[in-house]
Amino acid sequence: MLPYKSLIQIDRDAAVTLYIQVCNSFISLITDGTLQPSDLLPSSRILAELIGINRNTVKLAYEELISQGWAESVERKGVFVLSSLPILSKTKIPEIDKNKVPQEAFIWTNKFTTSIPSKNLQKNILTIDDGFPDVRLAPIDQLMREYRSISRKFYGKNFLKYGSSKGSEHLRESICNYLSNTRGLVVSPENILITKGSQMGIYLAAQLLLQPADHIAVGLSNYLCADETFRQAGANLLRIPIDDNGMDIDHLEELLQHKKIKAVYIIPHHHCPTTVTMSMDRRLKLLKLAKEHRFAIIEDDYDFDFHYDNKPYVPLASIDHNQNVIYIGSVTKTFAPALRIGFMAGPPAFIAAAASLRELIDRQGDTVLEEAFALMFDNGEMDRYFRKSLKIYKQRRNVFCELLKKDFSEEITFKIPEGGLAVWSTFDKKIDLIKMSEAALKKGLFIDNGIFYKNESFSTNGLRLGFASLAENEMTAALKILKTIISET
Amino acid sequence: MLPYKSLIQIDRDAAVTLYIQVCNSFISLITDGTLQPSDLLPSSRILAELIGINRNTVKLAYEELISQGWAESVERKGVFVLSSLPILSKTKIPEIDKNKVPQEAFIWTNKFTTSIPSKNLQKNILTIDDGFPDVRLAPIDQLMREYRSISRKFYGKNFLKYGSSKGSEHLRESICNYLSNTRGLVVSPENILITKGSQMGIYLAAQLLLQPADHIAVGLSNYLCADETFRQAGANLLRIPIDDNGMDIDHLEELLQHKKIKAVYIIPHHHCPTTVTMSMDRRLKLLKLAKEHRFAIIEDDYDFDFHYDNKPYVPLASIDHNQNVIYIGSVTKTFAPALRIGFMAGPPAFIAAAASLRELIDRQGDTVLEEAFALMFDNGEMDRYFRKSLKIYKQRRNVFCELLKKDFSEEITFKIPEGGLAVWSTFDKKIDLIKMSEAALKKGLFIDNGIFYKNESFSTNGLRLGFASLAENEMTAALKILKTIISET
Repeated sequence: MLPYKSLIQIDRDAAVTLYIQVCNSFISLITDGTLQPSDLLPSSRILAELIGINRNTVKLAYEELISQGWAESVERKGVFVLSSLPILSKTKIPEIDKNKVPQEAFIWTNKFTTSIPSKNLQKNILTIDDGFPDVRLAPIDQLMREYRSISRKFYGKNFLKYGSSKGSEHLRESICNYLSNTRGLVVSPENILITKGSQMGIYLAAQLLLQPADHIAVGLSNYLCADETFRQAGANLLRIPIDDNGMDIDHLEELLQHKKIKAVYIIPHHHCPTTVTMSMDRRLKLLKLAKEHRFAIIEDDYDFDFHYDNKPYVPLASIDHNQNVIYIGSVTKTFAPALRIGFMAGPPAFIAAAASLRELIDRQGDTVLEEAFALMFDNGEMDRYFRKSLKIYKQRRNVFCELLKKDFSEEITFKIPEGGLAVWSTFDKKIDLIKMSEAALKKGLFIDNGIFYKNESFSTNGLRLGFASLAENEMTAALKILKTIISET
Repeated sequence: MLPYKSLIQIDRDAAVTLYIQVCNSFISLITDGTLQPSDLLPSSRILAELIGINRNTVKLAYEELISQGWAESVERKGVFVLSSLPILSKTKIPEIDKNKVPQEAFIWTNKFTTSIPSKNLQKNILTIDDGFPDVRLAPIDQLMREYRSISRKFYGKNFLKYGSSKGSEHLRESICNYLSNTRGLVVSPENILITKGSQMGIYLAAQLLLQPADHIAVGLSNYLCADETFRQAGANLLRIPIDDNGMDIDHLEELLQHKKIKAVYIIPHHHCPTTVTMSMDRRLKLLKLAKEHRFAIIEDDYDFDFHYDNKPYVPLASIDHNQNVIYIGSVTKTFAPALRIGFMAGPPAFIAAAASLRELIDRQGDTVLEEAFALMFDNGEMDRYFRKSLKIYKQRRNVFCELLKKDFSEEITFKIPEGGLAVWSTFDKKIDLIKMSEAALKKGLFIDNGIFYKNESFSTNGLRLGFASLAENEMTAALKILKTIISET
C-alpha cells in the first residue's frame, strides 16, 4: 500500500471541506501516475485511521471520485481507479525554478512582444506624465450617483443583461448631440460605435481597413501605440514629415503618385508627441486627396476638447462630404483613463462591420457605465466639467510654460502648445534622458526617458511634459527636482 | 454678393453661441465651394443688417474664421477667404436618401459581416433565453457599495489612472485564490490576465495561437461566436463529433495521424449548445494527446460554477503538468452580462503576449470595477452569491424539466442537464422553429429560432431553453404560451 499518511495532506482550517480535500489528493495521485488504472484504493476504515479523519468523510470522498469518473466501486471487492482511464506515466511535477519562467509546451509564434515601453504605473510618486488628465478634477461622485441609481432601480436591472455591440443607444444619442454642439459634426446613432477608449477605435479601424502589406501613411513622429496597431494588422507604415502645421500634405501628394495608400492616420489636434495643430488648408487638401485616391482618413481627435487660445478647428469629419473620414474620440482621455469610454464615428456600413468585429473581441461594453455617462451628458454635468477643466488646464499650461522658460532656458526648447495636456520639450543634447529619468526616480520624481517617442525614423532628445495633472505646488516641486538633477549631471 | 440672408441661418435658442453659428455657416460655404479662395466677405455692418444680429457678433465670427485659418484680413480692404486654401469644386452635399444607407468612399474589404444572428435585446418582454443568469439575483447593491467607496476615497482616485493591461493586481490575486479553492487550479498572478468576459479570452487565444490556414479542432456542434473568432483569425475548423461524454477524443486522435493541429477548443462543463460534460477519461486522454502533439487546449470553462448533482470535475488546467492548457473563465456569465469581467490563465509567456495584444485592443480594463470585484471576492460576497444562485438555479432546473416532461413529452426530447443554465431541447421535426419563434413574439414571448446553434455541418431542430433567468411563475407563463403556439401550428 502507498504511504497514504504522507501522500494525503489535509488542512482543517482550509475553506475547502475535508472530503473534497481527500478527493482532490486522490485525483493528484491518479493524474501524476502514482495510482494507475485498476489500482485498488484502501478501504475507508483503514484510510480513516491512517489520516485521522471520520470514516464517513472517506466514504464521501470515494463517492465523489466515483461520480467524477475517476474510480469505480466493485461489489464486495472495494473501490478501484477506473480501469478505462488512459495509463499515465509517473511524471514528477517539474519543480518550478523561480528564476526561470516556465515554458508552455504547445507550439505557437509569439507575434506580440511589442516594443511599447511600459508607462509609469507607480501611483504614489510625484509624476510628470505624458499628458494625462487630473483625475482629481473629474466629477466622479456625480458619475457614481448616476451609476448607482441606474443599478438600484428595478428597471436598471435590464442594463445588466446583454446589450448592443455598438454600445448603449442612449449614449450614442448623447454623443451625437455632443459632436454636433461642440464641433459641427452632424451624425446619427447609426454612425456611432461606443468603444473602450480611443485605442479600441484605432484597433478596429486598423483591422477593418488594412490587409497584410497594405500601406498606411503616418507621421514621421507618431503615437507609438497607433504605429504598433497598424503593424500588427500587417501594414507597412509610410512616414510623412510633421512640421508646425501638422502633416506635410504636399509630401503625401507626391507619395501618392507612385504608392497605393489605404489609409492616412492623423492626430489633427494636437499631434502626438509634438502637440502641433494641423492647419485648415492642409485639412482641406487632405480631404481632397482622400476623395481623389479613395483612401480612408483615420482622424484621431482625442484632444479636441482641450484647445486654449481660440476655438478648436472643426474636425475633418465635419467638413467631409464624401464619407472618407473615420473619426475617433475619447471620453476616457478627458475624464479618467480607467473609465474606458470612447467613440468612433463613420459611415454606417463601416460602423456595422466594426460592431461585428467588436462582438468577437469582447462582445460589448459596460452598459451601466455607458448609461451613466449618457446621463452625465444629458444633465449638463459633462459640459460643466469640460469648461471647468479647460480653464484649469489653461492656467496650468501658462504657469508650467512660465516656469520652463524661467528655469530651463538653456536646457529645454519648446513652443507653448495651443492645446492638449503636455508640452513637447526638446532637451539640450548634452542631457542623457535615460540617466536623467533614473536619477529623478531616486529623488522621488517619475519622468519618462523619451524612448516612447522614438521610432525607426524619428530620433530626438525630446519628451512630452504633461502639465495637466499637476497642481501648481506639484509643478514647482517637480521642476525643482528636475533642475537639481540636470545641474548635477 | 451671395444671398447671405438665406445662406446664413441662425437659431437664437440653440446651445451654440451666435458668433460660432455664423462662423460655422461660413465654413460650410467655404467647404462646399460656394465661397472660393480670395473671395471677399461682406463687411460686418452689411452682414449684421442682412441677418439681423449685432455687428460685434459678426466681428467675433470673422475673428474666429481668421484664427482658425479659413480667412485673412487685409487692411483697409476687408476680410477674404484665405487665398492659399485649395480650390474646392462646388459640390452639392448629396441629399441623404433615408431608404439608402450612405456608402463610404474609401476602398476597403468588409471582412466582418459575420453570420452571428443577433440575440434578443428587447428587454421588457417575457424571454426564454439562451442560458443567461438572472441579473435580479446578483448582489449589485454590494458591488456598487464597493465601487462607490473605492472611487470616493482619496486613495481611490489612483484607480482612475492608467493601470496594467493584465488587469488589477488585486483582482488577479483574488482570482488565484478562487481558482485554487474551487477547482484545485494552483496559479500565481503572472499566470492571470483579466479580460472583458470570456469572449475576449477566446479572441486573444485565437489571435495568438492561430496563423492563416492553421487547423483548430472544435465540436461538430459548437459555440458559434468561438467558431467565428477562429475563422476571423484565418484558421480552418476541423469538426469533431460530440456525444454524451463530450468531444470524441478517439476521433481527434485519428485526425492527428494526418493533420497538424495547432489548438483544440473545448467547453468541458457544459458543452454549448448541447450541455454535455466531458468525461474524465476523455479529459486525461486529451491532455496526453496535447503533450504528444504539442497543441494547445483552449479550455472554455465559463460554466464551471453551475454544476448541480455532484461537484464539478476539476478542469483540465488543474491536472495538466505540461503547460498545454489555456484556461478561460467568466465572472460576467455568473454575475451579470453587462459587467464584463473574465479571466484567462496560462503559461506566463503566453499571458504576457496576450497582455501586449490587449494593450493594442483597448489598453486595459475598468480598474475601478476590477477592484470592486476583488473586494467582493475577498469579503466572501462572491462565494455567498455563487452558493445562493446555485441553489436557486438547481431548483429552477428541476421545475423547468418537470414542466417540459409533463407538457411537452411529444414535442421536445431532452436530457436533464447536470449543470449550466439551459436545457438542450430537440423539437419534433414537424415543428418549424422559425415560425414558432415569430408566433411566440406576437403573443409576448421571445424564444430563439435555432439558427444560432446551426453551422455548416450541424443541423438540428434544437434550441437551448434557458431556465435560470425565469422565476417559477415566469416559467409557467412562458411555457404556457409556447404550448399554445405549438398546438396551433
